[in-house]
Amino acid sequence: MSFNTFGHLFRFTTFGESHGPALGCVVDGCPPRIPLEATEIQAHLDKRRPGQSRFTTQRREPDEVKILSGVMRDEASGAQVTTGTPIALLIENVDQRSKDYSEIKDVYRPGHADFTYDVKYGLRDYRGGGRSSARETAARVAAGAVARKVVPGMIVRAALIQIGPHKINRSRWNWDHVAQSPFFSPDAAMDEVWTGFLDAARKSGSSAGAVVEVVAENVPPGLGAPVYGKFDADLAGALMGINAVKGVEIGAGFAAAAYSGEDNSDEIRMGNDGRPRFLSNHAGGVLGGISTGQPVVARFAVKPTSSILNPRRTVNRYGEETEIVTKGRHDPCVGIRAVPIGEAMVACVLADHYLRHRGQVGDGPTWPFSR
Amino acid sequence: MSFNTFGHLFRFTTFGESHGPALGCVVDGCPPRIPLEATEIQAHLDKRRPGQSRFTTQRREPDEVKILSGVMRDEASGAQVTTGTPIALLIENVDQRSKDYSEIKDVYRPGHADFTYDVKYGLRDYRGGGRSSARETAARVAAGAVARKVVPGMIVRAALIQIGPHKINRSRWNWDHVAQSPFFSPDAAMDEVWTGFLDAARKSGSSAGAVVEVVAENVPPGLGAPVYGKFDADLAGALMGINAVKGVEIGAGFAAAAYSGEDNSDEIRMGNDGRPRFLSNHAGGVLGGISTGQPVVARFAVKPTSSILNPRRTVNRYGEETEIVTKGRHDPCVGIRAVPIGEAMVACVLADHYLRHRGQVGDGPTWPFSR
Amino acid sequence: MSFNTFGHLFRFTTFGESHGPALGCVVDGCPPRIPLEATEIQAHLDKRRPGQSRFTTQRREPDEVKILSGVMRDEASGAQVTTGTPIALLIENVDQRSKDYSEIKDVYRPGHADFTYDVKYGLRDYRGGGRSSARETAARVAAGAVARKVVPGMIVRAALIQIGPHKINRSRWNWDHVAQSPFFSPDAAMDEVWTGFLDAARKSGSSAGAVVEVVAENVPPGLGAPVYGKFDADLAGALMGINAVKGVEIGAGFAAAAYSGEDNSDEIRMGNDGRPRFLSNHAGGVLGGISTGQPVVARFAVKPTSSILNPRRTVNRYGEETEIVTKGRHDPCVGIRAVPIGEAMVACVLADHYLRHRGQVGDGPTWPFSR
Amino acid sequence: MSFNTFGHLFRFTTFGESHGPALGCVVDGCPPRIPLEATEIQAHLDKRRPGQSRFTTQRREPDEVKILSGVMRDEASGAQVTTGTPIALLIENVDQRSKDYSEIKDVYRPGHADFTYDVKYGLRDYRGGGRSSARETAARVAAGAVARKVVPGMIVRAALIQIGPHKINRSRWNWDHVAQSPFFSPDAAMDEVWTGFLDAARKSGSSAGAVVEVVAENVPPGLGAPVYGKFDADLAGALMGINAVKGVEIGAGFAAAAYSGEDNSDEIRMGNDGRPRFLSNHAGGVLGGISTGQPVVARFAVKPTSSILNPRRTVNRYGEETEIVTKGRHDPCVGIRAVPIGEAMVACVLADHYLRHRGQVGDGPTWPFSR
Repeated sequence: MSFNTFGHLFRFTTFGESHGPALGCVVDGCPPRIPLEATEIQAHLDKRRPGQSRFTTQRREPDEVKILSGVMRDEASGAQVTTGTPIALLIENVDQRSKDYSEIKDVYRPGHADFTYDVKYGLRDYRGGGRSSARETAARVAAGAVARKVVPGMIVRAALIQIGPHKINRSRWNWDHVAQSPFFSPDAAMDEVWTGFLDAARKSGSSAGAVVEVVAENVPPGLGAPVYGKFDADLAGALMGINAVKGVEIGAGFAAAAYSGEDNSDEIRMGNDGRPRFLSNHAGGVLGGISTGQPVVARFAVKPTSSILNPRRTVNRYGEETEIVTKGRHDPCVGIRAVPIGEAMVACVLADHYLRHRGQVGDGPTWPFSR
Repeated sequence: MSFNTFGHLFRFTTFGESHGPALGCVVDGCPPRIPLEATEIQAHLDKRRPGQSRFTTQRREPDEVKILSGVMRDEASGAQVTTGTPIALLIENVDQRSKDYSEIKDVYRPGHADFTYDVKYGLRDYRGGGRSSARETAARVAAGAVARKVVPGMIVRAALIQIGPHKINRSRWNWDHVAQSPFFSPDAAMDEVWTGFLDAARKSGSSAGAVVEVVAENVPPGLGAPVYGKFDADLAGALMGINAVKGVEIGAGFAAAAYSGEDNSDEIRMGNDGRPRFLSNHAGGVLGGISTGQPVVARFAVKPTSSILNPRRTVNRYGEETEIVTKGRHDPCVGIRAVPIGEAMVACVLADHYLRHRGQVGDGPTWPFSR
Repeated sequence: MSFNTFGHLFRFTTFGESHGPALGCVVDGCPPRIPLEATEIQAHLDKRRPGQSRFTTQRREPDEVKILSGVMRDEASGAQVTTGTPIALLIENVDQRSKDYSEIKDVYRPGHADFTYDVKYGLRDYRGGGRSSARETAARVAAGAVARKVVPGMIVRAALIQIGPHKINRSRWNWDHVAQSPFFSPDAAMDEVWTGFLDAARKSGSSAGAVVEVVAENVPPGLGAPVYGKFDADLAGALMGINAVKGVEIGAGFAAAAYSGEDNSDEIRMGNDGRPRFLSNHAGGVLGGISTGQPVVARFAVKPTSSILNPRRTVNRYGEETEIVTKGRHDPCVGIRAVPIGEAMVACVLADHYLRHRGQVGDGPTWPFSR
Repeated sequence: MSFNTFGHLFRFTTFGESHGPALGCVVDGCPPRIPLEATEIQAHLDKRRPGQSRFTTQRREPDEVKILSGVMRDEASGAQVTTGTPIALLIENVDQRSKDYSEIKDVYRPGHADFTYDVKYGLRDYRGGGRSSARETAARVAAGAVARKVVPGMIVRAALIQIGPHKINRSRWNWDHVAQSPFFSPDAAMDEVWTGFLDAARKSGSSAGAVVEVVAENVPPGLGAPVYGKFDADLAGALMGINAVKGVEIGAGFAAAAYSGEDNSDEIRMGNDGRPRFLSNHAGGVLGGISTGQPVVARFAVKPTSSILNPRRTVNRYGEETEIVTKGRHDPCVGIRAVPIGEAMVACVLADHYLRHRGQVGDGPTWPFSR
């Protein structure tokens, strides 16, 4: 994980700004002979796509993905498969309205990366946020769509569990509702609550934060490596690296600090499948940095969109104090669109660790052992 | 960050188990001509050392560090300096009591890495936790002591802000108290509260979780890199990778989810030092993955020690159901000793990003810019 | 250097096959504020382009490069500069004749990567060599064009010094002739010799090997790092990784084995520029893995093109013995077009080490030292 | 491969100077459950050990290796096996005579890394060459001893094929003689020739270069990855990174430049083992960067020892011109001891690629394919 490349064996490199001709990624290290069609990737991109409800930005970005390399169509079966070589995915930018950036060109928007890019690089691409634009995350979702196919049977799903101060009721959790909800909510009752809350936020020119929960099922045990290649450490880095994320939890997370050792302990029995069955999952599917085979559960907090219509005090690049109002088409709650992005990042971490584990250990031992 | 190596330019590799002859690390990429004495490293190790109060394990590990390479004493000045080549640090294990491990040899302790190591590697070093022992963190603290010297003027400090359900009162925060407190507490009033709470936990054979806060000051702005080398992403990975950590926050963290855009916004004015002065620090010193120059603030949650005296249901490596009680000398709250470890990991991330930034950008631009 | 990414701080990832829609690369880690126009990159691509003489393949590939990201045009000066974010370069494939591959689809061409791709991946893209096509090197040349701009003042040039058994006379070395020669020859007298030799080879359906020499001037001293980041080790890896290369030398190379210690020794005097002046350069500009400031001199041997018109015995993917004749448009001597590729790889190694050195050491010491 | 770490999945980090308390390495990523005794590593170290004949330095370094971590003794079988965690290997320096370094402290020995270390780091450890000492290679040999056990059935052997201008006669190649020869010569007739030649060189205070050939057998096909993780590229980097190496060849190497396509072509038939049988091995066991299953054959040229007794012109660190004579206990031909080092580096590259291949491809396809 460095600069614009994520992962070790399953790795991808993203490129592109919101206002250049295109963005995309190169997925490298993908195993060969995996069926892969552009339509599969597109389906995931469509979930992240803006403009689908009034709670996400009204920019229209079709985000149509093209596979430039790394696949080959089998003449006999007609199926397209990976070849083991780099899979380049390209998404052209089509909605680059010529816009007047003179107001923000030299002024730093609080909460944005404006100052930090400028002080680091000595210049910044002020058009649409440049490289720090959430548009880069389309490339992550595309890479994640490939990653999903690497680990056999693995399912990675996410849902929104909090907007502003309003949390879901976990007893009403329903994965089926997530796909229908404009908020990726697992709790049908929250759609109305959040609608009212966000409408109010938008009307007042404000914005709201959120919390996303990602769950990965059918994760093989044994993924991850002590002590600086821990599965949960990589997961935390992956999720904290999503735009606007300020906190990450695995399993019980911060709540674990208040537990007793007894309460936090996940006792173990034998499952009918010959695998250990944990009586609870405070560990979130990982112990000692290595997956247990239980569902991997992670949560991350997304700060409220920094682009708000109310004036804020700031400075410009010449060190002069001023004020700024961020106009334009912005999501009042960027946390909503972070749901598919969180899924993608978790899928990529899992695919990478799956291959890394296989590299070191091969097929691994057969558990349980015989005496 | 992979396997047992942490970092990119400033990087270290640790090795060793609790019951082998020695553990240690190799610090690579350290700039040359930095004064470095073993006593400086020892001072940090002594903070992490167990047996200093009745709330940490009573094992006596002197943790005496030796520098095996990478330094040279200047004949003229008498000062020892780094040479730019790998700095190997060795800590011998002296308290390896011959102990009977037959009870846990084949049985998995809930909350420990016993099952995951066994299912991954097909064997596990059951003596003292093997590689998953907290003893490995001595090597992190040693590496961190070197890292502190890499970034000029940087100060990295940490404190314990919660044990079990008992949180400090932030208005009483006093860094001076941290060094005197058996808990690294910044709030003097908590020493008594936590003493009572932990005594009770210990008597009942239980354990407690905790939350640690790390603050780094004098961090140059511009450290970090979009989009998979973000400073905060690396920080999250580094802290989540500490034994028993289940959650990580930067700045406002999970609380940010409930804020409005206005509340979360860190407005900016000009400081007297010619640098931007942020009127608040919800960002925790990082925007867009790049440091702002404000203090870097991170928190992490440590789960309660999994070794408890009350029997828990579990299975053994042959797939048989059984029960286990973890005897022995254990910290009732591993979060206490995580304080210097958190400092060390943050120092290492900062040193690494300092060098990576210098590599790409050199001396960087002079801010503010002139028109 | 792993899979399809080259380099550490200055790094690029290439993608694409000869018969897909496009190929290209993502250059990551490039310093900001470096002037960069597509025309500069194009100039280097045009040198590598086939079809420029009768000794290179007659495929017409315009190899027109587009910059998709990582640059920004300064409104005031009109100059386009790098932003410090990934620079994606795209080259569309235009000459993908629909061709009948049925003859080679299942049969392995000796000397090609046909068998090895098939046995590794379980399939191979037989269209134009797939990923092993020399077309991938266009992306290297594009990346190299960016690399050249990273090290101030650095000049990287290459020339062909041998085709088949015919070597240049080094006393006639003339860099000016290289640009005019259809062979990138520094010895004008060889153009006629090589023309005759290659015409004969082509008529007989055969092919020829070659040796390329690359020289980098104005290389700062101090680049490289002991002991597995040696500048010359990275150089050797970079050049050996070019298609069809079988040997690499630095400085005196294999000849050094026959020298005495006295003959091989590069004695040192002080230069007028206050730098050491080596009285010879058997070291090829590198000692102990670190650049001396002398010109870096490397050579590499390119095997004869494996695609020849004379039938060769081989097997097919079903383990059946057969024969093959490789038809089509092939360079009789791929070494010729390897000249700009060698330049590019050396430039990339230098740019990477320049940034890595700056990362660890910063501005470095001022030499000579004062007493 | 960066700084002092070699490899990706099978990786090792070395540390130590010739005049510090110890040197060693940390081998990381080794698969678990591999039998490994210190005596096995010691056997390889003993081959590299100096003072075994009058043609290697007379320093007495017992080079006794200790395993500090990463192994565990099975109580039942008594065998010691790897645990999958880092294997730290330590070699104490015992022959650190207090010596007067005042003559070379400030003066640069031509051909050594003295100037380059000083100009890079601003200081150098002049005691015994510091980090650039050949003593570091003991750690490589130790790591290589572990690597050999990673790839089932693999045999890596090397021999000296040239000293000064005197080459072996390949028709007399006898692996059995290598172990008996003081030069690791495969040609018994050369022992006398080289003895006379080196005696003369030593008497005249001079030194000699050499060429080493490494052969790896039972290498699985499919190792390596296009296009910057090529097996041969990594091999070239590994061998060029050995002290004093100036050239590397694979298979036919530089000779290939003079071949015709027909001569260089390795035709293929079916072997009795159901694998392809190449009728020659100009490729040296690698095509397109991927192993063919044929023996991997590499050669490297070692320059004559730079430490010679005849005075050479040089400068000192203050920019003053002077002369130097290198006294002390030096090998007249460092190429001899490079033989086990070359073996070790090739073994490490193979082990790394074996795991990397397994990571991406798993068990891989069964060749030949069925229709």
